[in-house]
Amino acid sequence: MVTSPVVNTYPLSSYTFGTKEPKMEKDTSVADRLARMKVNYMKEGMRTSVEAILLVQEHNHPHILLLQIGNTFCKLPGGRLKPGENEIEGLKRKLTSKLGANSPALVPDWQIGECVAIWWRPNFETIMYPYCPPHITKPKECKKLFLVHLSEKEYFAVPKNLKLLAVPLFELYDNVQRYGPVISTIPQQLSRFQFNMITT
Amino acid sequence: MVTSPVVNTYPLSSYTFGTKEPKMEKDTSVADRLARMKVNYMKEGMRTSVEAILLVQEHNHPHILLLQIGNTFCKLPGGRLKPGENEIEGLKRKLTSKLGANSPALVPDWQIGECVAIWWRPNFETIMYPYCPPHITKPKECKKLFLVHLSEKEYFAVPKNLKLLAVPLFELYDNVQRYGPVISTIPQQLSRFQFNMITT
Repeated sequence: MVTSPVVNTYPLSSYTFGTKEPKMEKDTSVADRLARMKVNYMKEGMRTSVEAILLVQEHNHPHILLLQIGNTFCKLPGGRLKPGENEIEGLKRKLTSKLGANSPALVPDWQIGECVAIWWRPNFETIMYPYCPPHITKPKECKKLFLVHLSEKEYFAVPKNLKLLAVPLFELYDNVQRYGPVISTIPQQLSRFQFNMITT
Repeated sequence: MVTSPVVNTYPLSSYTFGTKEPKMEKDTSVADRLARMKVNYMKEGMRTSVEAILLVQEHNHPHILLLQIGNTFCKLPGGRLKPGENEIEGLKRKLTSKLGANSPALVPDWQIGECVAIWWRPNFETIMYPYCPPHITKPKECKKLFLVHLSEKEYFAVPKNLKLLAVPLFELYDNVQRYGPVISTIPQQLSRFQFNMITT
């Protein structure tokens, strides 16, 4: 038989959550965000962003850690790479910035795992596709999602203006209205993995 | 940088398509199909099915080969394993039955690659999920989708009652109404691969 790659998932209760200074969004509107993207594209070319899928378990079902801004909008922790920056190092930098404690000794040793999805933004618009559409020769952004393998115990420092939620796969699945096309299809992208649910 | 696994895709025009005797569906209705599933489950336990994603390219965009039954319903080539059958061998058997020529020398040497998705059927119903839902201890079916790496030249014999279609990823994407939840999210599951489009 074909063996699926195994992912250890630990109970949400085995992690510790503290707070730190707020991390404000750079943009206050979608229009501002797209305008800033355009300015950066002129300077640096295609934007590459990296995002993390951090898994925990509750009731023997996998949950994903999402950052909630305000009352509705959820996003994966991660962000934009600097020009030429290594993807793995860049994702570690972003995870530390978003969720690491101010004291370096408490910052998780981020284990970046498999790339599970790649999304493309053909134009300076919100819509993205899981392929570069035909006839698009200059995509404006490439976003890569990576599994991050958490240890049994970690300390996360959550910026005070955000909430960190553990959302079950069954809540994400088929829920594009609430989570958007990228996050709502994470359950399908994780389906090939075998979750080793550790209950200690 | 993280390197994506590479999949060579050859032009649709480099393959040859013939016909062979019809392969009739075992069931004439969804109700019949679910009833047969129940009978088989009583005898053999959970059904395991395996399906193939066969990729070609046209206009430098990946296309998937789907079998069309009648005017609307499309499915991936594949089918149910025998009790205890090896997944890879079972998928090769099913591909030969569905698409192989009657002359063994003309049957492709099926190269079964990565498992890209696993779907679960919790009950004797049509709905499937990309995870085993919480509290379901006895799922009724587990369906695995595999990439199959085609050589540059192959001969496919298509049963006379079916049509073999090459459907572009952009047609499948976000088209659950036409293709259902399993096939319509193949573009997301393939997004992590790098397609090496060969144009010879």
